[in-house]
Amino acid sequence: MVMQERAVRTRAALIRAAAEEMDRWGYEGATLTRICATASVSMGALTFHFSTKDELAQAVQESGGAYMTDLVDGVAARGRPALRSVVDLTVGLARLLQDEVVVRSAARLTRERPDGHSWTLFWLPAVRDLLQKAADQGQLRRPGEPRAVAALAVYLMAGAEARCRAMIGAGGGGDRDVAEEMDLIWELTLEGVAAGSG
Amino acid sequence: MVMQERAVRTRAALIRAAAEEMDRWGYEGATLTRICATASVSMGALTFHFSTKDELAQAVQESGGAYMTDLVDGVAARGRPALRSVVDLTVGLARLLQDEVVVRSAARLTRERPDGHSWTLFWLPAVRDLLQKAADQGQLRRPGEPRAVAALAVYLMAGAEARCRAMIGAGGGGDRDVAEEMDLIWELTLEGVAAGSG
Repeated sequence: MVMQERAVRTRAALIRAAAEEMDRWGYEGATLTRICATASVSMGALTFHFSTKDELAQAVQESGGAYMTDLVDGVAARGRPALRSVVDLTVGLARLLQDEVVVRSAARLTRERPDGHSWTLFWLPAVRDLLQKAADQGQLRRPGEPRAVAALAVYLMAGAEARCRAMIGAGGGGDRDVAEEMDLIWELTLEGVAAGSG
Repeated sequence: MVMQERAVRTRAALIRAAAEEMDRWGYEGATLTRICATASVSMGALTFHFSTKDELAQAVQESGGAYMTDLVDGVAARGRPALRSVVDLTVGLARLLQDEVVVRSAARLTRERPDGHSWTLFWLPAVRDLLQKAADQGQLRRPGEPRAVAALAVYLMAGAEARCRAMIGAGGGGDRDVAEEMDLIWELTLEGVAAGSG
């Protein structure tokens, strides 16, 4: 029993170390040696849990995906108006990208692995459903364009990811918070940037 | 004289081949051997023009930067209202990212090279100036927030770049045009996404 608990902890430490390594160096650049060192685990223990780098990357993506799925479910459970839920979801995703290395790493890996599906698959279907509902309920200025608003959400999330990476590249921290920035940008876009709009 | 013309053509072919290689494989992944093959140039000719991979990357960035500077100057010369000029500039950048491999490669390289400045440096100062002018001239709904609109522009450009890469990854083409998508997204955000805004 104690052995099993230890195995679970080792596995979790390896996934986190792999996420840090792959977030920083990418899939190709990541080395198993550095992952072992970061996790304080022997190469034998690593290969016991994950026989290939690809398996480890898969585990990182699943772990990051679980965070995103939890967020999507949480926003749905809150039951706020559909358009507001889209904002909550993307602001929450920006916060996850900023704070959770497994999420950031999963986003990067889905681009770099040969069979990688886009990380938008974890949340874009929910955004599309919410925007259709928002259109049906008259929450959109242009009811015919939930698809265009979904494209806006995808662009903004790419912006949030780029901002997170730029901040990390610049040594992290700084005075800006990506989730707050995303919230502010939505506020502008919901009500309109141009004077005399409306 | 004929020799000099040939040298200019060889240099241009090498920059284009390097842009294609670095856009696809990144700075680390790019190989001089493949660049020579693509440009139909010998390794000796390559090293005559560029003594290191870094010099070649620098030339790609300068070439991509020149396209962007020309665009910025062209938008300024057109003299349309400031807020409209911001839209024209970002839509034009989206088109350059889509159509010009040196621009796309320059955007990637500025992230990957150790001393790389952000590619936003080529256009963000102009966007900021235009937005300040738009605020002064009453073109913004919230005159106090040109900075927030600039952040929106940066996020949207990151989105455009991600879309271009995803389309190329998916084999290119497709039914969507990134510049048109950018234009549509601005239309939405200028007038406001939410019903009853304004």
